[in-house]
Amino acid sequence: MSVDRLDQIKESPLFWPVRLSRNAVIILDETSLPAKTVYIKAKDVKEAVKAIRQMKTRAFGQFLVVLNTFLLELDKAGSKYKQSEQLLSLLEDIAEKIENSRPTFPFKEVTSMCLGWGMQAIKQDEDFVEFVSMRILGYMEAIRQRRLDRVRRIADVIEDGDKVLTHCNVSGELAMAAWLCSQQGKLVHYFATETRPYMQGAKLTCWELKKMGADVTLVADNAIGSLMADGLVNKVIVGSDRSCANGDFANKIGTYQIAVLAKEFSIPFYALIQPSNRIPSGNDIPVEIRPADELLRFGGRKIVRGNVDAFYPAFDVVPRKYLTGGSIEIEVG
Amino acid sequence: MSVDRLDQIKESPLFWPVRLSRNAVIILDETSLPAKTVYIKAKDVKEAVKAIRQMKTRAFGQFLVVLNTFLLELDKAGSKYKQSEQLLSLLEDIAEKIENSRPTFPFKEVTSMCLGWGMQAIKQDEDFVEFVSMRILGYMEAIRQRRLDRVRRIADVIEDGDKVLTHCNVSGELAMAAWLCSQQGKLVHYFATETRPYMQGAKLTCWELKKMGADVTLVADNAIGSLMADGLVNKVIVGSDRSCANGDFANKIGTYQIAVLAKEFSIPFYALIQPSNRIPSGNDIPVEIRPADELLRFGGRKIVRGNVDAFYPAFDVVPRKYLTGGSIEIEVG
Repeated sequence: MSVDRLDQIKESPLFWPVRLSRNAVIILDETSLPAKTVYIKAKDVKEAVKAIRQMKTRAFGQFLVVLNTFLLELDKAGSKYKQSEQLLSLLEDIAEKIENSRPTFPFKEVTSMCLGWGMQAIKQDEDFVEFVSMRILGYMEAIRQRRLDRVRRIADVIEDGDKVLTHCNVSGELAMAAWLCSQQGKLVHYFATETRPYMQGAKLTCWELKKMGADVTLVADNAIGSLMADGLVNKVIVGSDRSCANGDFANKIGTYQIAVLAKEFSIPFYALIQPSNRIPSGNDIPVEIRPADELLRFGGRKIVRGNVDAFYPAFDVVPRKYLTGGSIEIEVG
Repeated sequence: MSVDRLDQIKESPLFWPVRLSRNAVIILDETSLPAKTVYIKAKDVKEAVKAIRQMKTRAFGQFLVVLNTFLLELDKAGSKYKQSEQLLSLLEDIAEKIENSRPTFPFKEVTSMCLGWGMQAIKQDEDFVEFVSMRILGYMEAIRQRRLDRVRRIADVIEDGDKVLTHCNVSGELAMAAWLCSQQGKLVHYFATETRPYMQGAKLTCWELKKMGADVTLVADNAIGSLMADGLVNKVIVGSDRSCANGDFANKIGTYQIAVLAKEFSIPFYALIQPSNRIPSGNDIPVEIRPADELLRFGGRKIVRGNVDAFYPAFDVVPRKYLTGGSIEIEVG
């Protein structure tokens, strides 16, 4: 089958895991996958922040939660508040709560864009709720098209016979590119890392690659050196949560070591990047340290005994020099 | 406290996890640790092979199981068999069963040594059972002394202020060296990897380091790049399961990538090596591929859904060039 238009690409459930209902932001609970497909309702910014903190959604899902939370709160406030200044103050309050939810994801880049639209509405004397809401909706649609276009460009990078390693989960784009590759007649094998401690690779990436008809093998995070030394991988494609002006980028913990290994074994390493100039370099990215208990327990059960401490940085900051394959970019600003 | 003699070193339960009772080889079940301290009885070579296959013990413990199984079977056979030739044939039968248990550990190097003693007993017309048993017992005692001496040499490598990373579990020696270091007044911090999928680092290494009074932090296998990039580790010390004439060595999966990272970040990497010339190079080491199910399940529960395949090589073969710190050796042949 020939796929000529972006909207013909089969969609993965993780590509767009958040939507808005009449009175809540509906979030696909990624922590319940693949056993159960559960949707959580966040009825206000407080519940949205809670879902983000508990990692019910991650990466692009967080981005959608923020935008939809603004839409939800604007809709609720429209009838209560009369003055645009009051509405802008409400948005500022929402922005502050969201920015304090998790440190590494660039929430501020999204919230300040929405606040900018609010100020523009006031300056141009527009209907505040309608103006800002239309901007957010238009922006989401633009991002959707750019992401579909990136799926096409990821598929272009993947060649017939490739053995592609990925880490954590790239929110649908890689799985959809895998579907597109198979439509194009390319035979490709995928390796997904488990991605301890949250197991996004085992739980999400394997599941969605299978859903998209791809051929996937799960490996322990420990097996990357072995796979590469044995020539079982010839390309690495990962996502990114944040990027810097100098090209450094943040992604799930474990990405740094895969990048170093890829360089050592001369395997091209690609990252899906959303370029940004707000942060000069990787040294300026704050890395979230998650609770030790998330490492000491597995599926609720304590796996380590005694008074043992654990250290769980949730993200790696990878220097630009390891991006040997290059970046596959979309503009989000 | 000054520790002048090797027998003053405090012993870890993992240093000598196997012993012989009247009618069975008693094996510390490392898969039940740290929750429960359970000993398994292997009443014959068949049960001993089963315990090895199920990874109830590993590394040095396997070595002890082999030697003690020979002792046990010799003791049982002594009254039944009259002729030395029959006893040698029995030992050959035991050796064959053991050599087929798991591929990567050098069982043949141990079994052929025992068979050699059997042939020597026949040639010198000695009491077969007594001669071979005494050789095995004497050999075990010699190994014990050499390992205690290596504990002292490991402690010599560790300096005040060091931040030592280890992977999997090195059967007591590192934990005992940690105890010795603290007796010597050195302040040292240890990082233990989880070591998926069997979690020997989380379950065994953290437990025994704590037992020996050491300061230990657990990290995900994914966090090594981050730790090294942030300067949190300045030495790596790992064990080895097998070594080659050219200096390549096999150890738990994950060792290769830690070695590559250590080289990239100029951190000295040490391995505890038992030199052997039987295998020319790493390419000649057979690597055990464990059942996919051991990766797809965790603590008995399936964590991956759908028809997903998994690949679980149990060992890495690390080229000599990554041994940047050097090897800390004992002779076992």
